[in-house]
Amino acid sequence: MTQRWKITIEYNGAPYSGWQRQDHVPSIQKTIEDAIYNYAGERVTVHCSGRTDAGVHALGQVAHFDLMRPDKPYVVRNAINAFLRQHTITILHATRVRPDFHARFDAKKRRYIYRLIMRPAPLTLDRGRVWKLHKQLDVEAMKKAARHFLGTHDFTSFRAAECQAESPIRSIERIRFYTDKDCTPLFRTAGELLFVVEARSFLHHQVRNMIGTLKEVGEGRRHPDDIQKILAARNRAAAGITAPPDGLYFAKVWY
Amino acid sequence: MTQRWKITIEYNGAPYSGWQRQDHVPSIQKTIEDAIYNYAGERVTVHCSGRTDAGVHALGQVAHFDLMRPDKPYVVRNAINAFLRQHTITILHATRVRPDFHARFDAKKRRYIYRLIMRPAPLTLDRGRVWKLHKQLDVEAMKKAARHFLGTHDFTSFRAAECQAESPIRSIERIRFYTDKDCTPLFRTAGELLFVVEARSFLHHQVRNMIGTLKEVGEGRRHPDDIQKILAARNRAAAGITAPPDGLYFAKVWY
Repeated sequence: MTQRWKITIEYNGAPYSGWQRQDHVPSIQKTIEDAIYNYAGERVTVHCSGRTDAGVHALGQVAHFDLMRPDKPYVVRNAINAFLRQHTITILHATRVRPDFHARFDAKKRRYIYRLIMRPAPLTLDRGRVWKLHKQLDVEAMKKAARHFLGTHDFTSFRAAECQAESPIRSIERIRFYTDKDCTPLFRTAGELLFVVEARSFLHHQVRNMIGTLKEVGEGRRHPDDIQKILAARNRAAAGITAPPDGLYFAKVWY
Repeated sequence: MTQRWKITIEYNGAPYSGWQRQDHVPSIQKTIEDAIYNYAGERVTVHCSGRTDAGVHALGQVAHFDLMRPDKPYVVRNAINAFLRQHTITILHATRVRPDFHARFDAKKRRYIYRLIMRPAPLTLDRGRVWKLHKQLDVEAMKKAARHFLGTHDFTSFRAAECQAESPIRSIERIRFYTDKDCTPLFRTAGELLFVVEARSFLHHQVRNMIGTLKEVGEGRRHPDDIQKILAARNRAAAGITAPPDGLYFAKVWY
């Protein structure tokens, strides 16, 4: 009898080629599968709720797998973590789920966070964890522009060429920029900008392409209302650049 | 004619033996002095507002030095940063100050931040940046205990044996714990605890010894009101352990 397990995973994606198992490069999937093998002696496939690209981080990636070995949830979590010690990947929670639970298909909503920092000085503590922009952006213009993404749209202009989704239609349920002033403890660095976006699902590179375009709005190179035209163009060339992976965090999945 | 410069510095202290220049080990002071030499060809001494120990970070350390070479403030900042590229140290700001400005003696108030995280899972993104505690602490008890530090006290019980300050009397002007619930963007990890403390000056290891003791209150091993007795004891052995450097950030200096 196998048991299906749901795990919540945090990782610093910088050292990995991304979630997906690939030959000759370190992937998050393979690293976790190897840790499970080292713990339980079983070769399993770990299915995630959303693949992340090279350098993208996770605060709450979710995945599932089936295991013969019967152990308590905290034992499963701790044992996998013991074999992840050399890696920047950790299992936050492990819980038993019904045999038909699917991390990808059962997800009702996903949250991504994108961190930007506006300052001339190079990064120290946040190196590889944020997109640093030399100049101050017009945050109000970016907030206005971001509102145009809310609701259901054809996101062809914001999807990667290699995106495999059947439909380019996605529904953005929540979108918001936070500045360091929204954060009481004042810990976050001056000039930090936090972008939060939630949808049932996202297209490949969608968040990074949205951010790359919003950055151009913040620079004054595009008008906030241009977002409507870019969406209507249904053409990747109409939108801005793909923001780097460093600032992107797969934050949460709802089931 | 030399010009006195005030610089604001951010650093990840993990790779360094601390602020102070020492033989055969990498220090933050020496690294910055070398960068200034590489830029300006002048051997200067960089005086900081407060020395940090090995592994302690800074979000807003302040220092001063004198330079012959006349350059604009942004040139000074960028040129030093160019020679700090291989390091986890950066100059956030450089400004001209009057010749008698002193980073240490003119400081009116200093802020330290200490980050704790309560969870069983190992750290990934925050490794070396926070004190991880396996179990949930009683935050309300810690908040109550922390209030006893407010005001002017003899901090002998909380100073390192090697502390060189003449007087053990210090005045805590502000002290507060924040939880992840105080932070709107919800970016900070679940179970995070942020401790903020402000005073004109601190004794050696004072913040880390305060945190080490508050942690024991959070574990229920000491009562919140024990802080009064520990202060009154004027004996280092009466207080708790020294918290690790990882979670400590020298955040801000007021002049």
